[in-house]
Formats: sequence, structure tokens, C-alpha cells
Amino acid sequence: MPKTTRRKFLAATAAASGAALASPAIAQANPEIKWRMPLFVPRPFDVLWNEAGEFTKRVAEATDGKFQIQRFAAGEIVPGGPAVLDAVEAGTVECGNTLSYYSVGKDPTYAFGSTLPFGMNTRLQQAWYLRGGGGELCEEFFNSKNVTAIVMGNSTTQMGGWFRKEIKSLGDLKGLKMRIPGLAGRVVAKLGVIPQQIAPGEIYPALERGTIDAAEWAASHDDERLGFVKVAPYYYSPGWWEPNAMTHLFVNLGVWNALPAHYKAIVRSAAEAVNQTVIANYDVVNPLAMRRLVASGAQLRFFSAEIMNAAYDASFALYDEIAKENPRFAKIYAHWKKFLDESELYMRVADNYYENFIWSRRSKG
Amino acid sequence: MPKTTRRKFLAATAAASGAALASPAIAQANPEIKWRMPLFVPRPFDVLWNEAGEFTKRVAEATDGKFQIQRFAAGEIVPGGPAVLDAVEAGTVECGNTLSYYSVGKDPTYAFGSTLPFGMNTRLQQAWYLRGGGGELCEEFFNSKNVTAIVMGNSTTQMGGWFRKEIKSLGDLKGLKMRIPGLAGRVVAKLGVIPQQIAPGEIYPALERGTIDAAEWAASHDDERLGFVKVAPYYYSPGWWEPNAMTHLFVNLGVWNALPAHYKAIVRSAAEAVNQTVIANYDVVNPLAMRRLVASGAQLRFFSAEIMNAAYDASFALYDEIAKENPRFAKIYAHWKKFLDESELYMRVADNYYENFIWSRRSKG
Repeated sequence: MPKTTRRKFLAATAAASGAALASPAIAQANPEIKWRMPLFVPRPFDVLWNEAGEFTKRVAEATDGKFQIQRFAAGEIVPGGPAVLDAVEAGTVECGNTLSYYSVGKDPTYAFGSTLPFGMNTRLQQAWYLRGGGGELCEEFFNSKNVTAIVMGNSTTQMGGWFRKEIKSLGDLKGLKMRIPGLAGRVVAKLGVIPQQIAPGEIYPALERGTIDAAEWAASHDDERLGFVKVAPYYYSPGWWEPNAMTHLFVNLGVWNALPAHYKAIVRSAAEAVNQTVIANYDVVNPLAMRRLVASGAQLRFFSAEIMNAAYDASFALYDEIAKENPRFAKIYAHWKKFLDESELYMRVADNYYENFIWSRRSKG
Repeated sequence: MPKTTRRKFLAATAAASGAALASPAIAQANPEIKWRMPLFVPRPFDVLWNEAGEFTKRVAEATDGKFQIQRFAAGEIVPGGPAVLDAVEAGTVECGNTLSYYSVGKDPTYAFGSTLPFGMNTRLQQAWYLRGGGGELCEEFFNSKNVTAIVMGNSTTQMGGWFRKEIKSLGDLKGLKMRIPGLAGRVVAKLGVIPQQIAPGEIYPALERGTIDAAEWAASHDDERLGFVKVAPYYYSPGWWEPNAMTHLFVNLGVWNALPAHYKAIVRSAAEAVNQTVIANYDVVNPLAMRRLVASGAQLRFFSAEIMNAAYDASFALYDEIAKENPRFAKIYAHWKKFLDESELYMRVADNYYENFIWSRRSKG
């Protein structure tokens, strides 16, 4: 072989062997993947919509654009509410972003992934879920439903809703027609409230006509959008039935298991990072919305100690009833309650004492 | 060219051109990168050490092991405290995980990245930093110091430290020798305390001998490790000088700018996800540690309203003094204070009211 030819041959061989090693590496490294991700909220709920976009952007950027997840608002490919998780469980879509408690009608055990009346606040839910063993217990339950779950948002302590008249005593709750779904509806029913299941778009006219007396929705930023202040101006705190509202990225288990390991790592970190930016986003917009609501006529009120204590007792009585008949619920409930019990001293002494001082002092200007 | 030779030539050419396309793609896709990451804490502070490992693991997993970040405890390659950020600014190391407020001796503006006395709690610091515009302001400042910063931890509201005797009135603070560094030291000096700068290993013997009367460290899990309960049993709340303690991943700006875009995305999501797992981890271990501390003789006490109010006034007086002479501080301070002011109504009405009820009710069993 002449020298030049030999050099070319060696170069080609080297390149070829390089390519032989490299090609499968490229294929493995960043396969092109497309997922659809329905959300439980329509687009006007901009915090959740925008932060879901933040998640898909993070995943795309981390994979050089190879892993594309497209979000869909409620109603676009799947209705909102429990339908999102149903679709992920069935494998109709690869993944979805929703609240597990929408599925409490199927099994109250779903509530632990999101919230329970008089349960964890936002920080404790995260602690319990991410480092306290709660996530593993919920994951075992979710896996049995054919999905895996990664935390991806929390709309924090909700407000107590909008009332046409002031609620001063427990007696004022008797016969009150209130739009309030899920486990919360079962709790308030024990106090004499007649819970109503009404689609979001029908709440305003029902309040206006007086067909219902009250409605709960979310926290101030999302509440403001529905305009209830005009027809039911008494704005109560707190939403003790939803002291945090954790959402997840649910992924169909078969789809998840087929994902390359580094894509799993990318999805997990992106979703968990967004869990925190959702909270940060709500903590920026809710305070501004409440100030505007007050300026436009909202009358802030607190549920009385009498009502709070009765609702607390009714909530834990309900959990005991459910636990007796549902071993899946009972298993997670025992762990959840122990965690809440063990947290009380520290949270009261450290964070709560500081917060009581700083908010009281700053409210004086 | 004979047929076989031609086929071989074409194959080699195809492979070569494939390789020519593929090699840079591989090089771009997942270059091998190694960074060193010193921490501000020694290994016994297991939450921060372990969660820093969680960060490096996430980055490695997301890059198929190509991007390796090695963590070093304080003293291994860089001393702790302000030396970590100094080393990142100087480019001696690629990155570091520390608290920016260790550098307040160089410029008090560094405090906004971490905490200020009577400032944001953990949730608000995140809200302000991640979605409220605070992060952009801090980043502008950090960039001027040759680093970029990504949130990567928060040790939450700190405890108020250990005292040999009860502190019942403002008068009891006069002449008190207390280990308390940074801006907090400047605040308590206004109340008559004589702040002491003592290395961690020397605090215990100083308290035992009575060379100092009190020492603050962190929250209960980290506090427990230092054993102060045996020599200064009055354990005060809250650590109003550190109502949250945000840490960052600091990366040297030149190193950061040279990173491929998808590696930047991977690092950002991994660090931000770990910001949240650090908090979750502390919220699991601090409550258990406080219960053990109380069982082993810690006497829980609260700073009185008189002391809290005097310290609050002294803190904001100090900020006004600093702002007058430091325009970098003044710019961020105005934004920070407005955010705190605008958050007060909502945080008091929604989260704080719920938390007051739930902790009070649960403390009654």
C-alpha cells in the first residue's frame, strides 16, 4: 500500500471504528421522545399552566430538545378533575399533572398525595413526602394503580371560600348550601352543611341567584379570577380542608419503566424543581391578589374557634371511620398522623413563634 | 475500482462522514467534566453533606456519568465560612455550596442571598428569590463578584441559641457575652450584648468555663450535635436573626459560561430540586432532635415581646444606616422590604391563622 493510501485507509478505519462505538452511544444518549401531559386546570389558571411550561422547558433544554413534553389544559384532550389521573392510569396519555385527591371518590387513600382536612401545611407535606417516608407509602399505592408520581407543585394553604352572609356560629352552618367537594364535603356534612357539587362555570350564577349560600375554590389569586367577591363578599380563612394542595407529575408506569435512566433523572429533577417554583409563584401572586380583593370589597373573616374545633373533630372522626374499612387508607394514615404529631412541638416553637411575631409586628406598620 | 473494494471504500466513507458528523455531536452532547465543590460545613453536619451528595448524584445520573462533581467538607480543600465563596470568586475551585451571608464582612449586600434579622421566613425567601425579582437583583450583585448562584438549600428558621441563665428582660442582655457572628452580632451589640467570634470547636469549652454566657448555632438537629444542652440548658426561640438560611450552589462565572446549555439546565434543576430536599430533610430531623433535647434537659424558652421588639427596631435601624452608605445594599433592600410589606396581610390571614390553630390544637393532644 502506498504511504498516502495507507494513511487514508488508517484514517478511515479509525473513523469507522469510532463511528461503530459512537452511533449506539448517540442513540442511547438522547432518543427522541414525545409525551402528552394534560393538566387538571384550564388555561386561565396561569400559575399552574405557566409552571407546567417551565417543567417541559427544563426537560427539553436538558436533552438538547430531544425529549418534548406537550402540555394540554383541562378539556383540550382530557377533561379536568379525576379524568387526568384516570387517563394516565389507563395509558391513554403518557403523563399528566394533577391533584391525586380528585380521585378520592374511587378510594380515599388518594388524598394523602395531596391534602387532608386539618393535615399538613405546605412545608410538612413536602417533608413527609420527600424525606419522611410518606412518598414511599404513596408511591406503593400509586404503583398499584399503574402510575408513578413525582411532586410538581403545591398551591399552598387555601382560603375558606366565599359566603353570602357572615357565619358566626356553628348554628349558622346548619342547612347552608355550599359548593365544596371531596372529603371536605363529607366533613362539613357532619356539621349540617349541605355540600353541593357544581362545575366551576356554574358557581357564580348559583351564588348570585342564591341557589347556593357559599363556595370554596382556591387561594386568592385563583379566587380573584372567578369574581365571587361581587356576589358573596364574606371571604373566610382558613381553608382548613386544604391546608396544602400538592400536585404531581403522574407517569404511566409502563411508560416510565421504558425511559432511559438519565431521562428519568432529568424528569425527576425538573419536576421537583418546579414543585418549588409553583409555590414561589403562588406566594408572589396570592398576597397581591388578596390586597386587590380587599380593595374591591372582600370582607375578610376568620372561622371561629367553635367552628374550627368542631370541624377538626369531625375530620379525625371521619378518618377513623374510613381507616376501619379501608386497610390501604389505614396504613398510610397511621404513618401520616405520627409524623404530624412528632412535628408539632418544633414547628410551634421555632417557625410558628417567629411568624406570629413578625406578621403581628408588621401589621402594625 | 473493483466492486468489493468500491463497496469497502463507500462503507468507510459513509462511516467516516458519519463519524465526522457524530464526533462533534458526541463531544457536544456529553463532554466529560469534573468539578470540585467545597462545602461550608464539616461532615458531621449530615443533612447538608448528604444533600450535597444528592445534588452530585442527580447531575451524574442525568449525564450518564459524564459530569462528575466532587464534594469536599469544610477544611478538606478550602476552610469553611467565607473561604468557600472566596475560592469560587477567585476561580480556585469551579463551584461551592455555601451561605452568602458569611461574606457580609466584605459587603453587607451578601446577606440578601441568605437571610437578614427579622426578614423573610423560608417560604418567603424562596418566593422573593425565585419568582419575586429578588433572585435577579442578587444575581446582578453576585455576577459583579464573578460568580453565578443557584438556590441549593435552606436550613429554615434557626433557634435562638443556648444560654447559661434565663434572659427575662432587656436588662439581662447588657454585658452578656454571646457567640453570634455577622449582622446579628451588630444588632445585638445595639442591645448591650458583647458579641464574640469563636470557632465552632471552641464554643463548648467557653460555655462550660463561663468565658461566654451564650451561643447560637443553628436549628435543633445541628444544635444537638454540639452538646450545649449540658452546659447552657436554656434553649431560646426564635433565632430572629436567621428566620431562614438559604444556601446556594455558587459557580465561577467563567466556568459557568463555558458549560454547554443542556449541562446548565441539568445543574440548575438538580440544585433547585435539592434546595427543597434540604428543607424537607431538616423538617424531618429537627422536630425529632428537639424532642430528644427536651428529654435530655433542654429548657425551652421564648424571647419576650420586649426583647423581640427592641431587636426588631435595632435591626431595621441598622439596615437604614447601611443603606445610607452602600448603594448596592440600598437597591436590594428597598425591593426586599416592599416584598415583605406586601406579603404580610396574606401570610398572616391564610397560612399563619391555620398554623396557629393546628399547632395549638395538636399541642393539647
